[in-house]
Amino acid sequence: MKIKYELLKNDIKTKARYGLLHTNYGTFETPMFMPVGTQATVKTLSPEEIKELGSGVILSNTYHLWLRPGENIISKAGGLHKFMNYDGPILTDSGGFQVFSLAKNKKKDIKEEGVYFKSHIDGSKLLLTPELSIKIQNKLDSDIAMSFDECIPYPASYEYAKESTERTLRWAKRGKDVFNNERQSLFGIVQGGEYEDLRKYSAKETVKMDFDGYSIGGTSVGEDKDTMYKMIDYAIEYLPKDKPRYLMGVGDPIDIIEGVIRGIDMFDCVLPTRIARHGNAFTTHGKINIKNAKYKEDFSPIENNCDCYACKNYTKAYIRHLIVANESFGQRLLSIHNIRFLTKLTEDLRQSIKDGNILKYKDEFIKKYCGNNENN
Amino acid sequence: MKIKYELLKNDIKTKARYGLLHTNYGTFETPMFMPVGTQATVKTLSPEEIKELGSGVILSNTYHLWLRPGENIISKAGGLHKFMNYDGPILTDSGGFQVFSLAKNKKKDIKEEGVYFKSHIDGSKLLLTPELSIKIQNKLDSDIAMSFDECIPYPASYEYAKESTERTLRWAKRGKDVFNNERQSLFGIVQGGEYEDLRKYSAKETVKMDFDGYSIGGTSVGEDKDTMYKMIDYAIEYLPKDKPRYLMGVGDPIDIIEGVIRGIDMFDCVLPTRIARHGNAFTTHGKINIKNAKYKEDFSPIENNCDCYACKNYTKAYIRHLIVANESFGQRLLSIHNIRFLTKLTEDLRQSIKDGNILKYKDEFIKKYCGNNENN
Repeated sequence: MKIKYELLKNDIKTKARYGLLHTNYGTFETPMFMPVGTQATVKTLSPEEIKELGSGVILSNTYHLWLRPGENIISKAGGLHKFMNYDGPILTDSGGFQVFSLAKNKKKDIKEEGVYFKSHIDGSKLLLTPELSIKIQNKLDSDIAMSFDECIPYPASYEYAKESTERTLRWAKRGKDVFNNERQSLFGIVQGGEYEDLRKYSAKETVKMDFDGYSIGGTSVGEDKDTMYKMIDYAIEYLPKDKPRYLMGVGDPIDIIEGVIRGIDMFDCVLPTRIARHGNAFTTHGKINIKNAKYKEDFSPIENNCDCYACKNYTKAYIRHLIVANESFGQRLLSIHNIRFLTKLTEDLRQSIKDGNILKYKDEFIKKYCGNNENN
Repeated sequence: MKIKYELLKNDIKTKARYGLLHTNYGTFETPMFMPVGTQATVKTLSPEEIKELGSGVILSNTYHLWLRPGENIISKAGGLHKFMNYDGPILTDSGGFQVFSLAKNKKKDIKEEGVYFKSHIDGSKLLLTPELSIKIQNKLDSDIAMSFDECIPYPASYEYAKESTERTLRWAKRGKDVFNNERQSLFGIVQGGEYEDLRKYSAKETVKMDFDGYSIGGTSVGEDKDTMYKMIDYAIEYLPKDKPRYLMGVGDPIDIIEGVIRGIDMFDCVLPTRIARHGNAFTTHGKINIKNAKYKEDFSPIENNCDCYACKNYTKAYIRHLIVANESFGQRLLSIHNIRFLTKLTEDLRQSIKDGNILKYKDEFIKKYCGNNENN
């Protein structure tokens, strides 16, 4: 079935909202954070571990799966869920962002028909089009597919942003026209760069096409935080209240809070697993690097009171040892903790919406999170 | 408490024996295979996963833990069990083998007092002595500690082997004299190279010192299989029946069977986790490499009928994808399967001893295991 969003409560003082996402694999509360499993695996974690972290939807990358192992193998396996043994909802992105960020030498040639680029694996010449992106995603059989878009770089001139935004609208239409999967939903993506009128235009035109949900794209590409928040504000009021809203690629805790306050329901980011690989952990007192010598004999968990497997069973000293010795179990423990930190954050945000005190929650969170010297 | 070996059944046609090892953490059946957790972690696996594989004792490496994080940090954590959160029996080796195999540029200087060598991590000059090895292990607080020995290279002249074997006996005595940990057991190690009289001499003299168990060392150092089996045969008849016998560093399935038939109770090896990292899996039809193109669309498990987590939930095609894409979850799944293959092998061997048909079991196993073309 198509996903369905059920709005349960609007915050009075902000645009934050609490709701439910009904999916092929059950119902999940929003706002939610979606861990990223780029290559059909959330790095170092098992599906059971991902679920235990309170993750609702997880994300996987169309670009990566298209190149390796290929959508046909996944289709023959019975779809992405069966291939990776995950019986929870999966969202696939369109591949657009990866084409722009991962293409060999970052060189790509954007034409009306699609994007020409070279594979980051073997340098082979490839063309990804809106139709192909959708066809691949239809085969992957994720629960939510994304329209193929251009992620406009920042900064970009008004002229470039306008031209690109209009092309992304044409691409969205072309993708929607070939979309063919009964049990899969399709989201449209709002672009428009940093320009208010373009964001408004993109939002209105995208909504006209009637997608199952809407994403705000083109954020987290180097812009300052105020610009990112404006990009959300410019678009969100034109998005329908009965559809989920997804802010792509955002996983910084403060950005998640600011996004929720602006009316976002869904977030995804590689941040929690990527920083884990470098020994970093989120804590309520800011990010820490476990490799720091001061943790050598610190036999306390990463965070007291954290309910994750890593914090319930292991000390900073042990995890530090594992990371310093390049043992992947260390990355696994930090990934578990970091993802849990963000899913817990969204749990707390949902509660604060229900309690009507999200602004107070935000102030207290930021005061604690930014007060740590190691973080500054 | 010290470990205690309880002999329950001697095979009639071979020297194989079935027994129980009573430890600080419960009773485990022998013959057993012990997975290796070099740096206080069995690579990619959690303690819960290790236990689920039917592992009794696990092994950790004194040399590695001495260098990093250091035995004092582990002692302050409350010992190795608490440090790594493993509430099952742990055996630590003496560090001797690593000094010989890992020392920087493999250069080392063997003196009566101990071995001078350079750290494989930072090149610093170090001296490991029999006393220091024992003191480190006492602090690590493993359940079974090993005497510091020289692992004689193969081939070695009779003169060299004799001199080394005698020094190892003196080192065993020196280590035993300083040993000081009530709840820890100490094993002696039989050396003697490939020479029957030296193996006999080493076994008899080591047994005179009255250790809690005996290991046969100096195997798996490049000798052919017949020589390895002889090394066991030469020594085993001089080892007491009421103490466990441990063949160090042996994990090839056929070697385990041959070892059990010769009276060995305990085996350890990095093989199952090491080959996993290169995409190799044990099967009853021989080793396979999952990266082989023929597994691209093979949606069957590594082994039908295998009861491990990897085989119950994942296909060869998926694991192949993970290994090719360098995703550590793939190594984790292969490590789980490979360790389970060896613990299951020892389960089957125990049953065959109880049933009195170990020679038949061996013949059938080898016929199947070696009949696979990919393995040859």
